[in-house]
Amino acid sequence: MTTPETPRPASGRTAPEAPTTDGSASIGHLTEAGVLARILPVTAEGCVDGARAGSAPEGPRVEVGPGDDAAVVRLASPRLVVSTDTLTEGEDFLLDATCGEWIGAKAAVQNLADIAAMGARPSALVVAVTAPAQTPIALLEDVSRALSARAARDGAPVVGGDLGAGPVLSLTVTALGSLPEGSAPVLRSGARAGDVLAIGTERLGRSGAGLAWILAGRAADTRARELVAWHNAPDPDLALGWAGAREEDGTAIASAMLDVSDGLVRDAGRIARASGVVIDLDHGALAPDAEALADAARALDADAWEWVLHGGEEHAMLATFPADRVPMGFRRIGAVRALSAGESPRVLLDGAAITHEGFDHFA
Amino acid sequence: MTTPETPRPASGRTAPEAPTTDGSASIGHLTEAGVLARILPVTAEGCVDGARAGSAPEGPRVEVGPGDDAAVVRLASPRLVVSTDTLTEGEDFLLDATCGEWIGAKAAVQNLADIAAMGARPSALVVAVTAPAQTPIALLEDVSRALSARAARDGAPVVGGDLGAGPVLSLTVTALGSLPEGSAPVLRSGARAGDVLAIGTERLGRSGAGLAWILAGRAADTRARELVAWHNAPDPDLALGWAGAREEDGTAIASAMLDVSDGLVRDAGRIARASGVVIDLDHGALAPDAEALADAARALDADAWEWVLHGGEEHAMLATFPADRVPMGFRRIGAVRALSAGESPRVLLDGAAITHEGFDHFA
Repeated sequence: MTTPETPRPASGRTAPEAPTTDGSASIGHLTEAGVLARILPVTAEGCVDGARAGSAPEGPRVEVGPGDDAAVVRLASPRLVVSTDTLTEGEDFLLDATCGEWIGAKAAVQNLADIAAMGARPSALVVAVTAPAQTPIALLEDVSRALSARAARDGAPVVGGDLGAGPVLSLTVTALGSLPEGSAPVLRSGARAGDVLAIGTERLGRSGAGLAWILAGRAADTRARELVAWHNAPDPDLALGWAGAREEDGTAIASAMLDVSDGLVRDAGRIARASGVVIDLDHGALAPDAEALADAARALDADAWEWVLHGGEEHAMLATFPADRVPMGFRRIGAVRALSAGESPRVLLDGAAITHEGFDHFA
Repeated sequence: MTTPETPRPASGRTAPEAPTTDGSASIGHLTEAGVLARILPVTAEGCVDGARAGSAPEGPRVEVGPGDDAAVVRLASPRLVVSTDTLTEGEDFLLDATCGEWIGAKAAVQNLADIAAMGARPSALVVAVTAPAQTPIALLEDVSRALSARAARDGAPVVGGDLGAGPVLSLTVTALGSLPEGSAPVLRSGARAGDVLAIGTERLGRSGAGLAWILAGRAADTRARELVAWHNAPDPDLALGWAGAREEDGTAIASAMLDVSDGLVRDAGRIARASGVVIDLDHGALAPDAEALADAARALDADAWEWVLHGGEEHAMLATFPADRVPMGFRRIGAVRALSAGESPRVLLDGAAITHEGFDHFA
């Protein structure tokens, strides 16, 4: 990591360490150090002696924050849980359809969700940003503020950062968590025949719907506002992963879990394949989700079921549970059954194969 | 993190899961899953039950490797050390002056060096790769193989990965390590008057020299071969950070430490400022480094001292020690003295200010 206190051009050019108070200034006018000092919310002061505590009561303690070669974080246990993901402008978000706050919040959520989906509590984040020299510093400040705020809500301070130049804006967030001794991680491979499939959100499909409005060039339509916002910054209850899906003593109730990144059918298929089972989605249980999106779908001449079944970037917890033990916050949307002779793991809808835009991954 | 076992287009397009045996094929012809399966060296099999051990005798144990939402690694202690850094094509490396093996090795070294510079032993890496669809899969395989091999040498398995599309090749490596209970991290702020400054490499300046040959368009010159190779894949002894700079009982001998990322003068200046001292480099101690580069400098009409004093990307350990306790592997190249009245922390050479290409950060 590079450090906020020392001058180095963020743009690859030799730039003076000029103080800039204008939020519309571009980062090319600042040094990497100057930019990092403005976007890294945690400073090293007070961290070194361990005086600075994380926000969770028994959460991580930041021994060394940003400003040295690496951060030092005391985890609740030595069993580290770690995941990394990149959001790239033009691929994962469109700058003219989103804003800095949403980019930061989404980068936090998609990575925290990966920790939560192991049944683990997040402890900290580190973030590596690349940006063109003409990027407004205000945009990076917005990204950083929202990333930090969203991660702090789940007890995870941003403890380190890196800033470099690149052709487009890109954020790689690495989320760090821990598992208590004796608490098994909740894998994708534990679903058993007789379990139920449950989702930790009241409404599936909003993210896919929002993306459809963005791709139709109608993100500004008032009917799309909530959907576009959810696509750009989905906000599922991630604590369902580490608190909801476990007993108070840490024993996992969920037999398998992941977060919905690539669509319900595709992600349920991951559980089905890893566990060697068939997952049968319940049309009736998902009908309210589709119904809630019906008006938005009609306006685009689209199919709300497509969004519910295949829309990605929801990041809600998707888990399997023993049939009589679905925890609060989850709702049943399907059943797990054993493979028949010669049958492959797959996802069905009321017992029928699901087709999707001309290809079918699971039938 | 996304997972090697499931299909998702790496290019943002819908791509068939076509098996490809031709190494010249581009990743646009594979799914993200297909690419990850080829570039992630650790598979999930055998990991979940903890049977798979890291390479260090008391090193990390990988409980869950790639293939689920997150990896689970048992550290030697709950005191996590973490650093993240991005290498971007066109900014941090030029594809026509390097190769996949060097990109991977350098990405490993620059991140492992940040862990080592805290006096900590690396435990694991995760890597997020973005690449254009036309990137040859063979290039990513070379990057991955070298990254894994270099990290494994220091006991750090690659436990997770992410692959996405982007306009240029970019790698973000997050390095993870741990500090035993009772072992203080070696910060930049601990240098004291009377200490000596020492460097953990026999020869400084090779990386800067190699870069000069590359920028001159003469990377293929036989006289430049070793220097270009060192620039593209520097290979300092990183164990000097966690083993050399500590007593066997874990007590730090080094009073301050970092790795040389941005040049000796700039990085020594970071120690000087963090510690509130003056660092005086010893011209005589560094003369052999400059002399070894004299021929290469003459051929480019360059100044070897420029490379020794200001060349970056060496990643060797730079530390301060009590004068009578410089460990094996380090050599003395300067002295630490107290600030005079009204003096600012800075770096001198034989007591004189150092000027560098028209600006002077430290005088």
